[in-house]
Amino acid sequence: MTIPFNKPFLTGKETDYIKEAVESGKISGNGLYTKRCQLFFEQHYGFAKCLLATSCTDALEMAALLLDVQNGDEVIMPSYTFVSTANPFILRGAKIIFTDSHLDHPGIDEGRIEELITEKTRIIVVVHYAGVACNMGKIMELARKYNLFIVEDAAQAIDSFYVENDGMKRALGSIGHLAAFSFHETKNIMSGEGGMLVINDLQFAKRAEIIWEKGTNRSAFWRGEVDKYGWVDMGSSFLPSEIVAAFLYAQLENIELIQTKRAKIWNQYWDGLSHLQAKGDVRLPFIPDFATNNAHMFYLVCNTGEDREGLINELKRNGVMAVFHYLSLHGSDFYKNKHDGRVLLRSDEYSDRLVRLPLFFELTFEQVNFVIKLIDNYFTR
Amino acid sequence: MTIPFNKPFLTGKETDYIKEAVESGKISGNGLYTKRCQLFFEQHYGFAKCLLATSCTDALEMAALLLDVQNGDEVIMPSYTFVSTANPFILRGAKIIFTDSHLDHPGIDEGRIEELITEKTRIIVVVHYAGVACNMGKIMELARKYNLFIVEDAAQAIDSFYVENDGMKRALGSIGHLAAFSFHETKNIMSGEGGMLVINDLQFAKRAEIIWEKGTNRSAFWRGEVDKYGWVDMGSSFLPSEIVAAFLYAQLENIELIQTKRAKIWNQYWDGLSHLQAKGDVRLPFIPDFATNNAHMFYLVCNTGEDREGLINELKRNGVMAVFHYLSLHGSDFYKNKHDGRVLLRSDEYSDRLVRLPLFFELTFEQVNFVIKLIDNYFTR
Repeated sequence: MTIPFNKPFLTGKETDYIKEAVESGKISGNGLYTKRCQLFFEQHYGFAKCLLATSCTDALEMAALLLDVQNGDEVIMPSYTFVSTANPFILRGAKIIFTDSHLDHPGIDEGRIEELITEKTRIIVVVHYAGVACNMGKIMELARKYNLFIVEDAAQAIDSFYVENDGMKRALGSIGHLAAFSFHETKNIMSGEGGMLVINDLQFAKRAEIIWEKGTNRSAFWRGEVDKYGWVDMGSSFLPSEIVAAFLYAQLENIELIQTKRAKIWNQYWDGLSHLQAKGDVRLPFIPDFATNNAHMFYLVCNTGEDREGLINELKRNGVMAVFHYLSLHGSDFYKNKHDGRVLLRSDEYSDRLVRLPLFFELTFEQVNFVIKLIDNYFTR
Repeated sequence: MTIPFNKPFLTGKETDYIKEAVESGKISGNGLYTKRCQLFFEQHYGFAKCLLATSCTDALEMAALLLDVQNGDEVIMPSYTFVSTANPFILRGAKIIFTDSHLDHPGIDEGRIEELITEKTRIIVVVHYAGVACNMGKIMELARKYNLFIVEDAAQAIDSFYVENDGMKRALGSIGHLAAFSFHETKNIMSGEGGMLVINDLQFAKRAEIIWEKGTNRSAFWRGEVDKYGWVDMGSSFLPSEIVAAFLYAQLENIELIQTKRAKIWNQYWDGLSHLQAKGDVRLPFIPDFATNNAHMFYLVCNTGEDREGLINELKRNGVMAVFHYLSLHGSDFYKNKHDGRVLLRSDEYSDRLVRLPLFFELTFEQVNFVIKLIDNYFTR
């Protein structure tokens, strides 16, 4: 493959920081670099409290534990998402009520949520697909009206924002009661695997620390609030190794550099491909007025599944790796018999027709041009 | 502190391997180094199948999912253990039946298990405390007699063995249906945080991969067994970052060096302190005939809690960090009201009287002698 779909980027300081962490004598979780990363996020994005986790999946498991999900509780979420949006709630016994994507973009259609709310509904999980904000104004309104908790699956949404009607700009992940981020290798800022829970509703702050520390009050112990620490609750080992945190911190220090470069690539794709949208051959990413673009992903939505397959194959023949994305969860082998039968047309369309183009730091101007030309040829021949 | 309780050891290749992993273009889970580590364990210790995990806790969560623990199932385990032995089963709804430690060592008293078995008992979790084997012959006999599953919490038990009556030597972690290891920074081989699930009963092999990969059949997809992968089961993200696996592999390559050095330190403690055992001042670690010693830990059991407190304080005053260990889980804030009231005397005694001495690769002969002298002075003054 001449141009892979993704290539993780080493900013330069990662292994120095890992060595430094080892030298310090403590590389288990909740060490110096974990605290540095958490502080960075709290200071830059207005997150009330951050806890690094081993993955975004694990951060969502913490959310499900904190929200005390019980057997039969209903959780509403889009069907067009990764399995990890759903699994953490299923592990706690929840019933997932899948809903459709928006007409304009793969994110949740906020207009179709209210009709699904029942007495058993406790949580709405929104997914900021491609780092583009869902309509958080409408969604938080629903939360208030029906007394629900909102969890933001912000796996792809680092350094992206929701702009309120009055112009106030709020970071994705800072709006719902809880939010989860991913630092998987395909993300803008990454550590191979990795994630983070954000606690915006501080009623959950104390218990979050306990669940994070395997159900012990060890964090309170370190702060001198209790004499000795012990087992006080359920929990798991959600803390990543300091090796991972040290790596992540080196990435975070370079977030501006990374975001600037990614935006450049994204814009080059946009400029080079928008004529195909004008011609009706494909749809390009849609950024609503209330959203910003963190250049996490550049995708095309083809008119048919055949079109997409042809395009992916054509690119592959020329050494370019472009890939489709989620398969509707409501139609999966695991959930199709548990789903209530509603047709989720748009989710299925994105499953069939969306294709993601290569987008990573080291991608060159010439490489992007090469990809653009291949796509142009495919649709104009 | 002149002599800390623990200091993680960098063997030298860790950061080279991390750089190599990044260069390869794939540092999310289940990459080259993950496979190398798993193969190492499978080849060296006769484990049927290994899957790296983000922690030993997470490996035990996989075990609880694989064994399909249901609400009300009873799981027997020692009370003198870490919270992570219990939490994974509690998260799946199990009732924990705590049992006592052995008279001679903190491991489970195999003679007290049978009286606790009821119709609801499904699993026995044994903990190889300090890397010293439990009486696996007796325990596997119980498993066969009552049709139970055995999970080995082998967190501390890397490179340690159980010797059968006929002399056959089997690695700890290779005997129970499932086993879990830890690579926490305090362990002989470590990656800050980290763990591994061992699947010896191959009826669980296929589902283990699925649960590991977030409930998808992705592993089968990579092997070409299915056309595309999707959501087929519950699961989580148990895979560690390749950064962690690369680090771990560098440690594994040096396991002989590490084990030799640790054994030397352990033996120096033994030789320097056994006269105190002869005098009846303390008890030293007990290694049954059927067990080997992996030099994971050197501990003393004092005659009273006051003795232990005095010793720890005396060592601290002289710059030596020695620490106590678990607090009986049956008496914890979380479980005391759920426990059935049985007195577990030995577990409480080890909670009150056991102290662990510094033991890490870079500890020098002089430092160990210094610790020995301080302990000797404490008991002879």
